[in-house]
Amino acid sequence: MSKNLTSRAEDYSKWYNELVVKADLAENSAVRGCMVIKPYGYAIWEKMQAELDRMFKETGHQNAYFPLFVPKSLFEAEEKNAEGFAKECAVVTHYRLQNDPDNPGKLRVDPEAKLEEELVVRPTSEAIIWNTYKGWIQSYRDLPILINQWANVVRWEMRTRLFLRTAEFLWQEGHTAHATKAEALVEAEQMNDVYAEFAQNFMAIPVIKGVKTESERFAGAIETYCIEALMQDGKALQAGTSHFLGQNFAKAFDVKFTNNEGKLDYVWATSWGVSTRLVGALIMTHSDDKGLVLPPNLAPFQVVIVPIFKTDEQFEVISDKAESIIKELKSLGVSCKYDKRTTHRPGAKFAQHELQGVPLRIAIGPKDLENNTVELARRDTLTKEIVQIDDIASTIKDLLEVIQDELFTKAKNFRDEHTTEVEDFETFKKVLETKTGFISAHWDGTAETEQRIKELTKATIRCIPMSNKMEEGTCVYSGKPSTQRVLFAKAY
Amino acid sequence: MSKNLTSRAEDYSKWYNELVVKADLAENSAVRGCMVIKPYGYAIWEKMQAELDRMFKETGHQNAYFPLFVPKSLFEAEEKNAEGFAKECAVVTHYRLQNDPDNPGKLRVDPEAKLEEELVVRPTSEAIIWNTYKGWIQSYRDLPILINQWANVVRWEMRTRLFLRTAEFLWQEGHTAHATKAEALVEAEQMNDVYAEFAQNFMAIPVIKGVKTESERFAGAIETYCIEALMQDGKALQAGTSHFLGQNFAKAFDVKFTNNEGKLDYVWATSWGVSTRLVGALIMTHSDDKGLVLPPNLAPFQVVIVPIFKTDEQFEVISDKAESIIKELKSLGVSCKYDKRTTHRPGAKFAQHELQGVPLRIAIGPKDLENNTVELARRDTLTKEIVQIDDIASTIKDLLEVIQDELFTKAKNFRDEHTTEVEDFETFKKVLETKTGFISAHWDGTAETEQRIKELTKATIRCIPMSNKMEEGTCVYSGKPSTQRVLFAKAY
Repeated sequence: MSKNLTSRAEDYSKWYNELVVKADLAENSAVRGCMVIKPYGYAIWEKMQAELDRMFKETGHQNAYFPLFVPKSLFEAEEKNAEGFAKECAVVTHYRLQNDPDNPGKLRVDPEAKLEEELVVRPTSEAIIWNTYKGWIQSYRDLPILINQWANVVRWEMRTRLFLRTAEFLWQEGHTAHATKAEALVEAEQMNDVYAEFAQNFMAIPVIKGVKTESERFAGAIETYCIEALMQDGKALQAGTSHFLGQNFAKAFDVKFTNNEGKLDYVWATSWGVSTRLVGALIMTHSDDKGLVLPPNLAPFQVVIVPIFKTDEQFEVISDKAESIIKELKSLGVSCKYDKRTTHRPGAKFAQHELQGVPLRIAIGPKDLENNTVELARRDTLTKEIVQIDDIASTIKDLLEVIQDELFTKAKNFRDEHTTEVEDFETFKKVLETKTGFISAHWDGTAETEQRIKELTKATIRCIPMSNKMEEGTCVYSGKPSTQRVLFAKAY
Repeated sequence: MSKNLTSRAEDYSKWYNELVVKADLAENSAVRGCMVIKPYGYAIWEKMQAELDRMFKETGHQNAYFPLFVPKSLFEAEEKNAEGFAKECAVVTHYRLQNDPDNPGKLRVDPEAKLEEELVVRPTSEAIIWNTYKGWIQSYRDLPILINQWANVVRWEMRTRLFLRTAEFLWQEGHTAHATKAEALVEAEQMNDVYAEFAQNFMAIPVIKGVKTESERFAGAIETYCIEALMQDGKALQAGTSHFLGQNFAKAFDVKFTNNEGKLDYVWATSWGVSTRLVGALIMTHSDDKGLVLPPNLAPFQVVIVPIFKTDEQFEVISDKAESIIKELKSLGVSCKYDKRTTHRPGAKFAQHELQGVPLRIAIGPKDLENNTVELARRDTLTKEIVQIDDIASTIKDLLEVIQDELFTKAKNFRDEHTTEVEDFETFKKVLETKTGFISAHWDGTAETEQRIKELTKATIRCIPMSNKMEEGTCVYSGKPSTQRVLFAKAY
């Protein structure tokens, strides 16, 4: 592994790509736009999955699994959704290969094995799921249905980047069915709250909760709730969305129920999802020029112990110490790896663990044995100190909590420093060019103004914050009256 | 839900299909051969996943994720594997739909969005993974690679059955790379042992460990280890396989490494997998004419409490009792659901929980309040007794262990009773027609005899048991000399 990472100041995008590969998180595959998630990167995703899954179950949801394929006729049924995804979907047309008569040893599609109806590889599962729910729902007694699915989806993106935008990605998609509009709205907002809590408390990523403007909504949604995060380069990243779908899918798939007054009505729907994109958000929130910085909650292992020794005898004594520390840490719920590889020198190990963002590193050398100490190094602050070995486990447990908190605070301070209230369009453009970040400005509420601002500055409306207070003002572009500020930014 | 299940004696296959649907495990979808796994069925799969994942990690494996698609040129690279799967693979040929000019409101494949190279939806991932490993392996220091993937795969089967054979299914596939043949062989056998331990100790399904004959091997394998179970109808079911792939994939993808003597060699490989098919095995091992019977380890909830009451006051007192029992059970690690639905009568609840195989049912009525008792019913034996409420939690915990053990013993006795040593072909045919089950018989070791027996009886060689002792004998079909018995059966 070559040592130096491009610095963020030099080329942020290059820094990101290099980091993902060098830290062994993921790499591009032989399939255009699809990535291989390597064990270290997948271990981070597993930690996210476990926590989200716990939160979903705590809020009454169950997991299920629906087919990978959506028959074209179902895909078409909800018009806006179909329109939104038709341009980027992978289509299965055949179900067999045969020997190619023109190329011995090669295979070709068997022209006789053409499907009667093409199958779309799911870009999202509303269509196949609502077609299924039709069979499950007759009466209000069958509602609500609160289901989540962990799955892979495919969107044939033309410009892809590891984790941030890939043709295939992993995600979870919740799909719920309700008897009333009010209940569905509560669900959609609740799940956006769950995402916000997860991002902030578990990933240490500060987010703004808001709703999308019409032009930024999910295809087929009436309202899209979202959480928006700010990356270190001043660009926003949509980290999760939760959609109130109204009765659009129920109407498209004819899903009616008898309500408690004995009347037939269409069912109300929500859907909500987060994806492996969150790994990208994680990287671009906390990491630095030395490599990955992981919040302790997401680190595949939170502590690494590196022995420093010259003789076998020293190694043995150090290993005894290490094993006893690991045992103590384990009993406190702290994960720890003992890096006793003989193929690498301590310096190389230090560099690797720094690059891979292990929150804490313990080094134990012969002097430490004499003094009953270890060297304890923090990845996030790049500081180290000599500490007494007694009580080391509880010291570490506390320190991990401090790190988790400080990473959040640091990111939140950055976000706040890069959020600017702007009143006129000249300043708007200037802020985008210099300081970057979120711009809080008045907007006249029209799609035309939104579009024009996007064309002129590449900034989009990230969201209308949920916490907005009403405030008289004039649109930063058109000068027309406005009642609240919205958040603009260039975005991933 | 209609009440009566077809009995097993009447029509085993119909019983199975009805049970899967009525117990809310899964159903067919709008996509030919693909199933929807419903929350109750998925919860069982999640329990299997959690335990297997734990066992894989304990044996040093890490999870990762590789692309869903395999470019045709990679798919072709290992000849036998390609041949084995070409006839049943879904092929993506296009990446966009467009409005159909001939059918307003409909979409069609955009002829201009044809892929340069077709993509096969993975039927198994050896090809894409070994193409990736090529970039990861240079030296013996990079070995072993011990990776597992949880994923969906697609095999375009013509005759499908819920869980047992579906076009898309969920599975895990381990793919390991080793420096030596010996190490790869140990790995392949170890993972088959893990599967056997999992099937027996966790699922209460007795299995025979063995190796496959050449004609039954995985396409591309040198040796296929397997675990074989016997279903209640006397048919065998292959419950898991672990393959020693030799250097076949390393050669196909040119994956060489420098060994510790500085010489270049091809890498040695294994792969191993189990799938949602195990849910089918579970059903057909333990369930009865009343419905599902679940071993406590796999039950989404192990105990259900049903209140029986006439007045609100009774309901309140019963609920207090129920909540305190649930709390006690939880502290002992036992999962329990309180079924306090007001939309269903107790009788309907009993029937549903019986159908869904909840291991233990507690009913609490007004008389129980007086006597400080509950009614405790076992699903597996369909027995019930009145027990004192004090110590109920520890009574239940112990009873769940007893049930888990007894289910295994019952299935093992059935398997043993349906395993017959046979010396001549007339008896062979007769046993298959009457008693069914496994037939242990001598075989001359030729593919011709194996094929002939299959044509004449539909029985195949399920495996050559690992525990075989050498024994002189003559082939049950050809009369030629043989040194060991093999296991024949009709199979799923």
